[in-house]
Amino acid sequence: MTPTASRDDKFSFGLWTVGYNGTDPFGGPTRPPLDVVHVVEKLAEVGAYGLTFHDDDLFAFGSTDAERQTQIERLKGALDRAAELGAKTFVMWGGREGAEYDTSKDIRAALQRYREAVNLLAEYVTDKKYDIQFAIEPKPNEPRGDIMLPTVGHALAFITTLERPEMFGLNPEFGHELMTGLNFVAAIQQLLEAGKLFHIDLNGQRGMKYDQDLAFGHADLYQSFALVDLIEHGGPNGGRSYDGPRHFDYKPSRTEDETGVWESAKANITNYLLLKERSKAFRADPEVQEALAAAKVAELSEPTLNPGEGYEQLLADRTAWEDFDAKSYFGAKGYGFVRLQQLATEHLLGAR
Amino acid sequence: MTPTASRDDKFSFGLWTVGYNGTDPFGGPTRPPLDVVHVVEKLAEVGAYGLTFHDDDLFAFGSTDAERQTQIERLKGALDRAAELGAKTFVMWGGREGAEYDTSKDIRAALQRYREAVNLLAEYVTDKKYDIQFAIEPKPNEPRGDIMLPTVGHALAFITTLERPEMFGLNPEFGHELMTGLNFVAAIQQLLEAGKLFHIDLNGQRGMKYDQDLAFGHADLYQSFALVDLIEHGGPNGGRSYDGPRHFDYKPSRTEDETGVWESAKANITNYLLLKERSKAFRADPEVQEALAAAKVAELSEPTLNPGEGYEQLLADRTAWEDFDAKSYFGAKGYGFVRLQQLATEHLLGAR
Amino acid sequence: MTPTASRDDKFSFGLWTVGYNGTDPFGGPTRPPLDVVHVVEKLAEVGAYGLTFHDDDLFAFGSTDAERQTQIERLKGALDRAAELGAKTFVMWGGREGAEYDTSKDIRAALQRYREAVNLLAEYVTDKKYDIQFAIEPKPNEPRGDIMLPTVGHALAFITTLERPEMFGLNPEFGHELMTGLNFVAAIQQLLEAGKLFHIDLNGQRGMKYDQDLAFGHADLYQSFALVDLIEHGGPNGGRSYDGPRHFDYKPSRTEDETGVWESAKANITNYLLLKERSKAFRADPEVQEALAAAKVAELSEPTLNPGEGYEQLLADRTAWEDFDAKSYFGAKGYGFVRLQQLATEHLLGAR
Amino acid sequence: MTPTASRDDKFSFGLWTVGYNGTDPFGGPTRPPLDVVHVVEKLAEVGAYGLTFHDDDLFAFGSTDAERQTQIERLKGALDRAAELGAKTFVMWGGREGAEYDTSKDIRAALQRYREAVNLLAEYVTDKKYDIQFAIEPKPNEPRGDIMLPTVGHALAFITTLERPEMFGLNPEFGHELMTGLNFVAAIQQLLEAGKLFHIDLNGQRGMKYDQDLAFGHADLYQSFALVDLIEHGGPNGGRSYDGPRHFDYKPSRTEDETGVWESAKANITNYLLLKERSKAFRADPEVQEALAAAKVAELSEPTLNPGEGYEQLLADRTAWEDFDAKSYFGAKGYGFVRLQQLATEHLLGAR
Repeated sequence: MTPTASRDDKFSFGLWTVGYNGTDPFGGPTRPPLDVVHVVEKLAEVGAYGLTFHDDDLFAFGSTDAERQTQIERLKGALDRAAELGAKTFVMWGGREGAEYDTSKDIRAALQRYREAVNLLAEYVTDKKYDIQFAIEPKPNEPRGDIMLPTVGHALAFITTLERPEMFGLNPEFGHELMTGLNFVAAIQQLLEAGKLFHIDLNGQRGMKYDQDLAFGHADLYQSFALVDLIEHGGPNGGRSYDGPRHFDYKPSRTEDETGVWESAKANITNYLLLKERSKAFRADPEVQEALAAAKVAELSEPTLNPGEGYEQLLADRTAWEDFDAKSYFGAKGYGFVRLQQLATEHLLGAR
Repeated sequence: MTPTASRDDKFSFGLWTVGYNGTDPFGGPTRPPLDVVHVVEKLAEVGAYGLTFHDDDLFAFGSTDAERQTQIERLKGALDRAAELGAKTFVMWGGREGAEYDTSKDIRAALQRYREAVNLLAEYVTDKKYDIQFAIEPKPNEPRGDIMLPTVGHALAFITTLERPEMFGLNPEFGHELMTGLNFVAAIQQLLEAGKLFHIDLNGQRGMKYDQDLAFGHADLYQSFALVDLIEHGGPNGGRSYDGPRHFDYKPSRTEDETGVWESAKANITNYLLLKERSKAFRADPEVQEALAAAKVAELSEPTLNPGEGYEQLLADRTAWEDFDAKSYFGAKGYGFVRLQQLATEHLLGAR
Repeated sequence: MTPTASRDDKFSFGLWTVGYNGTDPFGGPTRPPLDVVHVVEKLAEVGAYGLTFHDDDLFAFGSTDAERQTQIERLKGALDRAAELGAKTFVMWGGREGAEYDTSKDIRAALQRYREAVNLLAEYVTDKKYDIQFAIEPKPNEPRGDIMLPTVGHALAFITTLERPEMFGLNPEFGHELMTGLNFVAAIQQLLEAGKLFHIDLNGQRGMKYDQDLAFGHADLYQSFALVDLIEHGGPNGGRSYDGPRHFDYKPSRTEDETGVWESAKANITNYLLLKERSKAFRADPEVQEALAAAKVAELSEPTLNPGEGYEQLLADRTAWEDFDAKSYFGAKGYGFVRLQQLATEHLLGAR
Repeated sequence: MTPTASRDDKFSFGLWTVGYNGTDPFGGPTRPPLDVVHVVEKLAEVGAYGLTFHDDDLFAFGSTDAERQTQIERLKGALDRAAELGAKTFVMWGGREGAEYDTSKDIRAALQRYREAVNLLAEYVTDKKYDIQFAIEPKPNEPRGDIMLPTVGHALAFITTLERPEMFGLNPEFGHELMTGLNFVAAIQQLLEAGKLFHIDLNGQRGMKYDQDLAFGHADLYQSFALVDLIEHGGPNGGRSYDGPRHFDYKPSRTEDETGVWESAKANITNYLLLKERSKAFRADPEVQEALAAAKVAELSEPTLNPGEGYEQLLADRTAWEDFDAKSYFGAKGYGFVRLQQLATEHLLGAR
């Protein structure tokens, strides 16, 4: 009854997600480690088409060359059944970049060093003719007091100051942005407008607290719905707005055994696909279309000035200021935004 | 297609909710005032059975006796068609009780004065043989820096120190508790366990920020679902747990005209009823029942000791400490909490 | 120049605080373990008079009886120089009590089991005639989604439902309460008013996020000042309000070596003593006393009714309602709360 | 004893700050309006050198041309004693730009319209040869659900997409950034690094909640200290980093009469000057200089590569990867960040 994933859905998982063994600040592991070949097979079963990993996910920090090679060969073997090895997007997450005390780090100098480093990386990749792009992943805090480039906005601004800005974009994470109470969907729209959504981390987060990494769709269904609606149907703009992997970066709860791990992995996919269905029905509903028109959502896409016009035309329009009749707005026809939200609610709940 | 309310649903609204004229800290009213008789008729249309009001909702502060009487007569006339005038629950919300600066108010003395006041009220009501109970409404802050009795817990603790604690309970508000990031449903469970849920304010709130008063169901669908599930079906305990009014305390957005006001009022009711349907189906689903059993949710209701036993029996059980085998728990059968959450999600989305 | 601690200051530390090795969710230890005897000697040097520990701080979970005995003897040897072993307050922190998903735990049943457990403990301790009391430590979340009894208020309310409430109090932690944005000082005042401040955990926390455990005084100096003012000088009420240990529950940053560990331990003590000095000067300043009087802070301690009077006297006072002149309050003499806050600021900054 | 302001300190106030009459969402005004000439005189007395105002502060929306002219003449008369009328920085705050519901506004289109509008303004100002620059003021929310360009980062990124980016900078507000829990000082450093700190709004905010607008220095003394240290002494970089007005955007509490209004205005200035003194002493303290050196704060300003070098030199350095000895870092010399924070604390408290 629940929908099934295809390769075209481009669902991918971090090796560290299903591989999380349950360790947390107050307790040790609750699950044994999973072998990478097994992980690849099981993720393929639940509907994933891709896999990502940290620098130390596949082999521990300090492994010998031989140990590394063995793990790479084993992974390659597993992937050969489904895909090929080869990363095009390198994500940079500055979890240790930041400060717990304001006097202990000069953030201006830190930004300069960060810039020096990523400019150098871009130069190297360009020289080597590698087909690689970089995606910065913002996060506001944890475990350090305050991480640099804490939100989508700060990272986006930083990228514009680089030597090769075209090679850099963002890897925004749902939960990270919600840790500040900011609207993730609005941030993604600003990223799309700037052409900088290079990759995306999907998960769940219940409010402003430590990074929870719940499964996608297991918290804040409204923002999850609006996000899928934006990615798959372009939101109010229409059109598919992002073509990269739908990457899940979550952690199965400590309370789960291996069966629970795979069920939690599948939950991410099921919820994404259910929200995609709901979004499709929402866009197709004539009553929604009528409500969108009444709310003048599409009108915002029209430039205020006609082609060729300048501010003189605006100045000549006395209705906007000199003859502006504020009273006529009081009690005038409303926008019906609440009705639109209610239509979205009813579609989200599968009640239409 | 969406469900319809009956009197048994006990939906009520504050007069100030649909009567909100759109004024906010940065702008004046966007809608003209509504007449109270008209409000009563329209609320009955959308499915309400009751009405509540502030001390100055029905007539302005400083009205003459004649003005008050007129308004009371007009309201009575309207209500006579549906119900009778007569409040049994008086809500006390301490919006001006608190402090912006820690040195400017002695909270211990303030709690003593608050206690003196409510003890006096209870004595007066008892002497007069009025059929009245009091419900304290907690709120953490706004507009003052910090309000006294900021959460359900603080108010519940205060009540136990009164002279007539049986006359006092709480009127928790969904949005107020979410302003602190606390779990509202857990708070309601503690209130129910203490027998102190006297009234409830339902609305919506998107995270820790100013008091938003969105329509019920227009934010945090998970807590909204779990709350309706708890109220209507007793949550995991089963049974209907609260029999008072389902009272909506929300504000229609500034962007709405009068049509939008009534649509927003109806949205509260529709969402409550949809969540009630979803909760009913969730509880009836055999797969959910099997998952609840696997997660051992009901086992928690069983006392640890058998009747008549004391701690000696526990001490005699060496498996709990001396012979405890921690290793046997590592990698053992999980609880399947994520599966349960996923089943709840699919029911919430109407996908089962 | 900075003040020095004496035994009368009753400063104590958890063994796990200075013993924290720097492990966090994203990295392993940065410091080697410290021997318990060495810890006791160094803490005595910086000014501590007491030591606390978790069940597994002194010896690892799963130690043999012999290993335990050795560690206890070594600790006893170290303490014999300064004090004797013997805990009177047992703290209970429910870090694993709670839920990540609302459907997976019946909080009412959980509260009943928790009550059964602590009632049993109290019965056992009473039967054994142990000189022990229990202190519940609230925390809102982390690592579980939502912990039960999340704030001072919730725990205080729970205690009133126990069989032997007199044996139970609270161990509030500065940082835990700030994770919800609530006012810690107001919570302590409610606890003091209820006679339930059994122990206290002092540290620092910068806003609503994961549990930071910074040193006391390294975040939110206003609440730190108001707290010390309340504990040492009774706040506006006057008098020393709490006589138990001033217990620091903090974590030295990962970036520190052992020298930094002892400097961070000392920072807690120095800051407490500096704030105590500031508070003493604040209370002694004639301008502050005059501002407190102008702000009518002490008047709140006076009962509204005279001894022997009832509500009839209030009803007879027509100035409170029938003849109330609201207009006379507009533009009337203010309370000068901002002036009081500014005086506190200048004392805090050592500028008076 | 407290320091006195001079014109060189460049303190300015919004007309709406001391003019706030106490109205809040739950109550009407508590103070009568102040005449603009009186305001100018009193602000000059407490140490201000400048005045700012909203479009409707000086004369109400809908005033006649004659009414406007009268008010302008009166203000000019008052200012002629101290300065001249003439604004060089226009602040744009998008308080009504945003959305309460994700489906009701296409943020991409909204950003395009916002860009069209400000490009047009810049063109007009350029054509007219006005000596004017624009400063965007970010705010995350309130009263609308989510405001566009919610943080310093988002606004900074937006500016880089304009036709005349050199005419646009930011007017960050202390309290607005703290509403998201982000670090304001780090944001200012990113702005300074980008050359975009055009103006600044100073006030106080206690955590993530509604916009409080407390007096500067009446909340979060650590960030206030680090901010003044950065502005006046360049933070770790040294040098004065910002030369524009120190503009206070705060609200006197409802509880204050006119005397309290002027005392609260003065509190902003006193606190700024006290923190400036503390910061100067902190920078001059030899122990601080030694701790900064030990913490290697200044080293971060040195480029990683020598002039003329490229990544080949880095690749040739085998100690950074192939021969990297992770073990040598465990337990090695620490950075002493906590010591630095403690030195800052003691300077802040005036204890050194």
